[in-house]
Amino acid sequence: MQIIEGGVTASVGFSANGVACGIKKRKKDLALVVSEVSCAFAGSFTTNLVKAAPVIWDQNLVANQSQVKAIVINSGNANACTAEQGYKDTEATAGIAGSVLGCKAQEVLVCSTGVIGVPLPMDKIKEGIELCSKELGASRESAGEAALAICTTDTFKKEVAVSVQIEGKTVHIGGMAKGSGMIHPNMATMLSFITTDANLDKVTLQTLLGSSITDTYNMISVDGDTSTNDTVLVLANGMSKTTSLSPSHPDWEAFTEAFMYVHTELAKTIVRDGEGAGKFLEVKVVGAKDKATAQKLARSVITSNLVKTAFFGSDANWGRILCAMGYSGAAFDPSQLNLYFTSSKGTIQVVENGVPLAFDEHLAKGILMEKEIITLAQLKDGKGEGTAWGCDLSYEYVRINGDYRS
Amino acid sequence: MQIIEGGVTASVGFSANGVACGIKKRKKDLALVVSEVSCAFAGSFTTNLVKAAPVIWDQNLVANQSQVKAIVINSGNANACTAEQGYKDTEATAGIAGSVLGCKAQEVLVCSTGVIGVPLPMDKIKEGIELCSKELGASRESAGEAALAICTTDTFKKEVAVSVQIEGKTVHIGGMAKGSGMIHPNMATMLSFITTDANLDKVTLQTLLGSSITDTYNMISVDGDTSTNDTVLVLANGMSKTTSLSPSHPDWEAFTEAFMYVHTELAKTIVRDGEGAGKFLEVKVVGAKDKATAQKLARSVITSNLVKTAFFGSDANWGRILCAMGYSGAAFDPSQLNLYFTSSKGTIQVVENGVPLAFDEHLAKGILMEKEIITLAQLKDGKGEGTAWGCDLSYEYVRINGDYRS
Repeated sequence: MQIIEGGVTASVGFSANGVACGIKKRKKDLALVVSEVSCAFAGSFTTNLVKAAPVIWDQNLVANQSQVKAIVINSGNANACTAEQGYKDTEATAGIAGSVLGCKAQEVLVCSTGVIGVPLPMDKIKEGIELCSKELGASRESAGEAALAICTTDTFKKEVAVSVQIEGKTVHIGGMAKGSGMIHPNMATMLSFITTDANLDKVTLQTLLGSSITDTYNMISVDGDTSTNDTVLVLANGMSKTTSLSPSHPDWEAFTEAFMYVHTELAKTIVRDGEGAGKFLEVKVVGAKDKATAQKLARSVITSNLVKTAFFGSDANWGRILCAMGYSGAAFDPSQLNLYFTSSKGTIQVVENGVPLAFDEHLAKGILMEKEIITLAQLKDGKGEGTAWGCDLSYEYVRINGDYRS
Repeated sequence: MQIIEGGVTASVGFSANGVACGIKKRKKDLALVVSEVSCAFAGSFTTNLVKAAPVIWDQNLVANQSQVKAIVINSGNANACTAEQGYKDTEATAGIAGSVLGCKAQEVLVCSTGVIGVPLPMDKIKEGIELCSKELGASRESAGEAALAICTTDTFKKEVAVSVQIEGKTVHIGGMAKGSGMIHPNMATMLSFITTDANLDKVTLQTLLGSSITDTYNMISVDGDTSTNDTVLVLANGMSKTTSLSPSHPDWEAFTEAFMYVHTELAKTIVRDGEGAGKFLEVKVVGAKDKATAQKLARSVITSNLVKTAFFGSDANWGRILCAMGYSGAAFDPSQLNLYFTSSKGTIQVVENGVPLAFDEHLAKGILMEKEIITLAQLKDGKGEGTAWGCDLSYEYVRINGDYRS
């Protein structure tokens, strides 16, 4: 696997663009991702009972359509809690994009993100799609325009691309995503779009995506709030011209490794840009009874407000970590726990066999003042491992979210 | 039922005191609550897998002892994550108190709250118990000293007392509690102590306490973190000289109403003093399928960081409330939801049948600028009702918790 420059246009046969159509005051707010040819596709969606209209539209397509050609995404308006009109607006959005791009509405996936409960301004959406489609391009820059246009409170665009050799041919996987509040395990206000020129059928792709979600997007948390619009979509157009990929293919492992890498990097980038985030936190649990237990423990720690504020204050507050593991609902033996903090400044062990060590507070502070910190919780219950990613809880988070709608 | 002045000494036959013994730098940190005669007792404890030593001690007493005489509480040190030595220290604490008070160690309940992972300074504990026992009193002031000594980051002491007529005799219930971080459904760093001169057997008292917890302490949240030390203890010494109270007693309802009132008020007082809390929030869900569903929905809303920061910013962000209900895991029909905000400045409806109303933003802001706000979510799924209490998430919360251990 090779990490390459680019985003959704890194895969052969995909073009993209992003424009400003006036949903937001000034910034770009509408993006298109289009494939030259029909694509196998897969989607994963919010578990929130309150689902935005485009989520319902996309879920219907995943259930009933075999192929799609494009995705249209608007930011600035989530089209959530907009009742029947919201669904009609999503359908109309797909219809407009379809007629502009020369395909059926049912071949266009739709995503929205932004303010909840405000009707989608359909005149602007229409103008935006028309404008956007005029300058669709396959360049690095075109992907960047799209990645910018899907942002809300994100402070930077999020893209990643890789290539991998399959049957001696180069297969590409490219992606873009947006955060950055309401980020929590089980899909958050998070949109992620992956293109690939790999050759996979729809069922294989959906199965692969399902298993990828568990270890990537579902292991990140900014604030514990799961949004109404979370969506991950993957389009595979087969233009790399390999034979069909499946678990029995000799290069399957190479492909899935690359596929996981793209999702993992996008997920991690989302928390790096979490609202008000000053630090990037990784919590790794090893030696748990099984993987599910390890992941549950890691998620509980990364979600704890008290843990997050302690990291904000560069405080080696191992007690809060142990406490968050304790109320996770996962079974483990606390009396066997070893706990370590690591950053570029070094590693320090703070707990051994469940009991605090007398550690060098000055060294600990130095390690925790860094921008990227790994917490390792080592258990002796089995071989289960799990990693979660998150960020600290800062004054800035409160400021951003105390004043969002205004 | 009559609300009266006082705390744990409001009940006949109870004395108390609180002193400073040096666990904290300056403030009071050790309290005793003592009954003249042996008491029936009941306890409810943290669900955290990581339990502090005194929690284990008290759970053993609840399981194996029929009566107790006293409670000793220290603040400044939680005696949690202190391994075997921690349990020995708790046992020794009970032994010291027992020998000073003239009873067995097994008749003394022990609670600790404060920093995790630091051995209990037993010399100070011993001095503190001896000093504290010298000035035990049944006065209003003595109860106040005890209520002060159990505080950690609490900004005020928390006491409540009521009297109720049983068989024409006056029965008292008095209580004190401490918060104020790690407060979350399922018991939090929260200690609550109730005395009563009512005549109840141990089994009846434990059953009554169990059912009270669900609607009181388990419905409050400051930050979603469940601590290692949470404990509610009730001592009933029977000195009111009524016949034994039980569900078949004609005045049972009057007694349980008073009992619930004391727990509810203590629970609400805890969130009023939540770390960094500027506003007191009540979330009431009515018309849910059943009570458990209503409580689950109310708890999810009160726990959401995004909802809490919106209230901090006096933002009528009904979308976040609907979103938090949506990811609660409870079943409801969002398309039937009506949502209202109420404060001393009036009431405003912001959602009707799941769709936002065009409301007067100026009026909404006026209502939400107040210090006490009620959110009413009205469903049409059934007759289930539930109420949760919490507080906003402020800069001050981040400041307090970013800098706790130091």
